[in-house]
Amino acid sequence: MIYDLIIIGGGPSGMTAALYALRNNRSVLILEKENFGGQIANSPRVENFPTIMEISGSELSDRLFTQITELGAEFELEEVLHIEKENDIFHIKTNYHEYESRTVIIATGVTHRKMNLPGEEIFIGNGISFCAVCDGPFYKDKEVCLIGDANTALQYALLLTQYCPKVHMFTLFDKLFADQILIDRVKNNNKIDITSNVALIKYQGDNKLKGLVFENTKTHELLEVITDNVFICIGQLPHNEIFTNLVDLVKGYIVVDENMMSKTPGLFAVGDCRKKEIRQLVTACNDGAIAALAANKYLS
Amino acid sequence: MIYDLIIIGGGPSGMTAALYALRNNRSVLILEKENFGGQIANSPRVENFPTIMEISGSELSDRLFTQITELGAEFELEEVLHIEKENDIFHIKTNYHEYESRTVIIATGVTHRKMNLPGEEIFIGNGISFCAVCDGPFYKDKEVCLIGDANTALQYALLLTQYCPKVHMFTLFDKLFADQILIDRVKNNNKIDITSNVALIKYQGDNKLKGLVFENTKTHELLEVITDNVFICIGQLPHNEIFTNLVDLVKGYIVVDENMMSKTPGLFAVGDCRKKEIRQLVTACNDGAIAALAANKYLS
Repeated sequence: MIYDLIIIGGGPSGMTAALYALRNNRSVLILEKENFGGQIANSPRVENFPTIMEISGSELSDRLFTQITELGAEFELEEVLHIEKENDIFHIKTNYHEYESRTVIIATGVTHRKMNLPGEEIFIGNGISFCAVCDGPFYKDKEVCLIGDANTALQYALLLTQYCPKVHMFTLFDKLFADQILIDRVKNNNKIDITSNVALIKYQGDNKLKGLVFENTKTHELLEVITDNVFICIGQLPHNEIFTNLVDLVKGYIVVDENMMSKTPGLFAVGDCRKKEIRQLVTACNDGAIAALAANKYLS
Repeated sequence: MIYDLIIIGGGPSGMTAALYALRNNRSVLILEKENFGGQIANSPRVENFPTIMEISGSELSDRLFTQITELGAEFELEEVLHIEKENDIFHIKTNYHEYESRTVIIATGVTHRKMNLPGEEIFIGNGISFCAVCDGPFYKDKEVCLIGDANTALQYALLLTQYCPKVHMFTLFDKLFADQILIDRVKNNNKIDITSNVALIKYQGDNKLKGLVFENTKTHELLEVITDNVFICIGQLPHNEIFTNLVDLVKGYIVVDENMMSKTPGLFAVGDCRKKEIRQLVTACNDGAIAALAANKYLS
């Protein structure tokens, strides 16, 4: 079978693309390597999606997933390894199968950026966490550490105060780079204390995390923190290297035109994985809708 | 008082802009000349907004309105007549007052396109309707007429079959320009019959509509239809003429950059009123989010 559209990635942008393509009666397969919902599924509280006062990221993802499965979306939990285009047909190789499609939308999102310090891989899951909504409850009634200064970091810090008596935040500069409403909430929350102008230089411990060593970026003094946990919330990385035979990248992000089409006709990119200024839930959904309508036009 | 942001228009794009600006702790005033929700408030059934399986346009608007009023949005039901910019401050004159703001987002949307035939103004509300969700129930158990061939026309035709034994649709060409899923539903609905290749050339009646005269665009034969009603669903018109001292227009739509900023710094345009390819609910919300974040950056 040759699909009309294969979508790589089951986050909000990919699922919105499916919603639009299915409403246009197109055959749609979604390939997702891990779990539907993408990054937003880890968000404890979403308040900035129009029409929804407050929702968890995972419930929001569930709603979108239900919406598209009701319309007949097909999906497979497989990782895409390579795409080729031959005679107007895309050949998509995954870790299990090979699929064919007339159009493709890349919606691979981004993943957590790491500190790239010795021992990090060992401590992930043994003290290092990237997701407060997933792992926060494990630290109930314990003090926690968190590194980061942007929206997600602040949201995580606020969430953690719901179970933890103290959240120790560490930031690289003396400024927070987040929505003012979140900054105000963090600054007014006496369970959160912030240590500014510090860079993590070392993880301590053997098989389990036992401490963190920071260097003050102004005074170069060292700061040793004894802790068995740290939430690393320092941003995100795209993963588009496997598509470089068909798309142009800028700093790892896919370049597309106003219709979300890459330099290869019939191949689109949407959401966090594409080069863009603003990466919000509603802007990801926007991209999915536009790409699906453009793909529909391309197919007609 | 000088506002941080004044938003002209209370549809989904304007309200989403308010949502984002308020979360950033900005002072926001929304000026809306008629009713909150914009065009979507007239939509009987919305199924293509991500995370919401099915909702009426008016309920969707209500949810968004509640969301922003909870955050402290201020609004006035006033019509904007003119804007000037002096020394980085925008002066906005309405039919009642004058306001000042550091940034402005234009979100004026579009309105119903008319046939521009003699008597049309008299028959509006006396037989001519633009909104099936508002006026459809008045024609319960009666046959109705509808002119149009795009998504809204088809959605209205389907809605009207819920109260009316027959919906007579008249289209200018022999093709429908809508989502395939809607075309299929219309074609499979035996309460809807379609007369193609006809142009309306005359309304009949004195104070109330009594009939319609069409001309077949191929054979030039006349077709007289005796009816006391017609739903006109032939598209939309922007209303941006009053802003021409500050923005560039293309076919009436405001030209903006990737951040939704017009040629005047601090002045943005979002949603249906701006020049763009795709006009969907979720793309309107996208624009509002981007403009509010860009306005926030401009203010900082």
